Amino acid sequence: MLDTAKVMRIGLLGMGTVGGGVYEFAQARKDMEIAYILDIRQFPELQCTVTSDIDVILRDPTVDAVIETMGGLHPAYEYVCAALRAGKHVITANKLLIAAHYRDLVQLASENHVALRCSAAVGGGIPWLPNLECALEQENIIRISGIMNGTTNYILDSMHRSGAGFAEVLKKAQELGYAEKDPGDDINGADIRRKIVISSNIAYGCVIQESDVAVAGIETITDADIAAFKRMGRICKLIASSRKLSGAVAVYVEPALLEPPMHESAIPGNFNLISFTGEHIGKQSFYGQGAGRYPTAYNVLQDCVDVRNGLRGFYNNKMEPMRVDNSSVIRQYYVRTAQIDEWLRVHIDTILDCGVVTTPLSVTQMHAWLQEQKKTDPGCFVASIRE
Amino acid sequence: MLDTAKVMRIGLLGMGTVGGGVYEFAQARKDMEIAYILDIRQFPELQCTVTSDIDVILRDPTVDAVIETMGGLHPAYEYVCAALRAGKHVITANKLLIAAHYRDLVQLASENHVALRCSAAVGGGIPWLPNLECALEQENIIRISGIMNGTTNYILDSMHRSGAGFAEVLKKAQELGYAEKDPGDDINGADIRRKIVISSNIAYGCVIQESDVAVAGIETITDADIAAFKRMGRICKLIASSRKLSGAVAVYVEPALLEPPMHESAIPGNFNLISFTGEHIGKQSFYGQGAGRYPTAYNVLQDCVDVRNGLRGFYNNKMEPMRVDNSSVIRQYYVRTAQIDEWLRVHIDTILDCGVVTTPLSVTQMHAWLQEQKKTDPGCFVASIRE
Repeated sequence: MLDTAKVMRIGLLGMGTVGGGVYEFAQARKDMEIAYILDIRQFPELQCTVTSDIDVILRDPTVDAVIETMGGLHPAYEYVCAALRAGKHVITANKLLIAAHYRDLVQLASENHVALRCSAAVGGGIPWLPNLECALEQENIIRISGIMNGTTNYILDSMHRSGAGFAEVLKKAQELGYAEKDPGDDINGADIRRKIVISSNIAYGCVIQESDVAVAGIETITDADIAAFKRMGRICKLIASSRKLSGAVAVYVEPALLEPPMHESAIPGNFNLISFTGEHIGKQSFYGQGAGRYPTAYNVLQDCVDVRNGLRGFYNNKMEPMRVDNSSVIRQYYVRTAQIDEWLRVHIDTILDCGVVTTPLSVTQMHAWLQEQKKTDPGCFVASIRE
Repeated sequence: MLDTAKVMRIGLLGMGTVGGGVYEFAQARKDMEIAYILDIRQFPELQCTVTSDIDVILRDPTVDAVIETMGGLHPAYEYVCAALRAGKHVITANKLLIAAHYRDLVQLASENHVALRCSAAVGGGIPWLPNLECALEQENIIRISGIMNGTTNYILDSMHRSGAGFAEVLKKAQELGYAEKDPGDDINGADIRRKIVISSNIAYGCVIQESDVAVAGIETITDADIAAFKRMGRICKLIASSRKLSGAVAVYVEPALLEPPMHESAIPGNFNLISFTGEHIGKQSFYGQGAGRYPTAYNVLQDCVDVRNGLRGFYNNKMEPMRVDNSSVIRQYYVRTAQIDEWLRVHIDTILDCGVVTTPLSVTQMHAWLQEQKKTDPGCFVASIRE
């Protein structure tokens, strides 16, 4: 039987949406205690010490773990580093932080013999990273893919259902709390890129540079595009994919046109679906709320339970620097642009009422063209056609 | 850090399809060793002791755990009981055994302070029960539902795609190894009933009698039924459902007519999709191979890893005897029968080319009628219409 006698004493950094959910869940447990809250605001109604000084928390030898739910890179990075150096386990929901500082944070945790967990950083409330970690016990993971962002799935799903335009749907998503005031990182794919980088690093035991990963978002999609996809009998989803190659990884984020009943095409609203493929066990998928106060807090608390049960280190401590190579992934693309240039003209397979379908092209080719094209036609939109 | 020095010594009961996969996976690990195989056949090529005498294994004090992959109730039940009494952890893939002897096996494990795990018994290779167990750490689970049988999903999916008849598709499923020679327990829903009983017992901390659970299978479905569902714009899936009520559980298995893009309607071939709904975190779903050598062996080995890492007991040791009550679940049904009796006539809402649609009825009412009706019209088929 695991030692269930000791109460885990926690310093909670940030009492926002997720932090508040974490506080509620933790206080309901007998084996955990929020000893400190780090926040610039005061919470006189709470039973714990509230401070704006991280050192007060880190100097207390009775604090076992720090939960970081502040978000952003700074001062989260400095606080998390200091916590690891102080011998505290760190649990964070911060994908920005983990994607940007993967290698040094994992090394720092390892050097200090403490756990670093970030299950809520990918998939919100979906137990994605813990299940990926379990699979690695026995399996060679060869592929990852999925819908990893609820905001964009909500927007695309709504546009398909209602026929409404992007701006109108985005406004509604913001009203419902499904999209941030500044939705930039969600709709341009940057948020998803962080999640596929973290997932791939863990799955393949490597370190991928975020900036090496090709990304196309949905910020320029229009109701005319959606109407064209409907005529093709397809549904548009923003998909992150990665595949293990020999000495490299293919990894990219792009809108994809799926044919029902393909599993990903059925994912509604702001839900996520993330899958891995193992060499022996095939594809396994995990579905649920990719964001939100309680789902995210749930994954944070699950990390605490795992650390309390003896888990140490990161999900996968292997960290081989890895090259990104998307040249072997070949697909046809839907392209809508105001200016069909010479390169595109040569690669047109079919002309549609709205946009064109290309001949088979590599992800490398298409994304390179798109990046150039956006300089002269910022409204340009592309989506790969999936079999 | 958990103790990783000690090798777990295992007695493997049964060297069939799953047992062979377990042997392969275990031999590839440094922290586990198959010390014995119990089988009536000899395997001179294997490096472990092969015996047909269970006592040889149970008397060896160096054996930590027994993996049961024989299947069937006897002698699996006697062997598992003897192993638990001998202080060995037991890992089994046997849903028949766990559903039938839930209470006494869990109690026996508890009395002997050993683990009893059966993750492969529900969902094959899907980490369903371990994730349900994790969720119980923090959540009140209020609902379970899903596609829990690959054979029937393959048959229904093929019938929808090809328009072929039941017998033809079943024959192909048997050729592909997706259906047993005697597919009775799969197609009549008995296999799924065991899985929803085990899942519900764990989720709600109760004990449900298998025989209390209403079940309707797909053994009488025809290509004409499928054509009727297509005209309705719906897809037929065999769904197990349960819901926690006050002092009772609603639990039943029946064909259900789903409207795309409902998630379950998109599940292809012999895959499974199983979901729970938590009070705070909403719906989480788990998708993958519900059967097969390696997927099933994967879950068995994961149980071994968990036991080795210190897990003891069952997924949920709470066992409150629980009444089944389906009277509050109200739905319209599709019914095709050769003899429309007085009760059905009164409850017809719409007459179709093939079959009728009823007015809203409770699951209790419909299943009671079906059981009677099958005596005079064994070819009768019903499916609930889901919103």
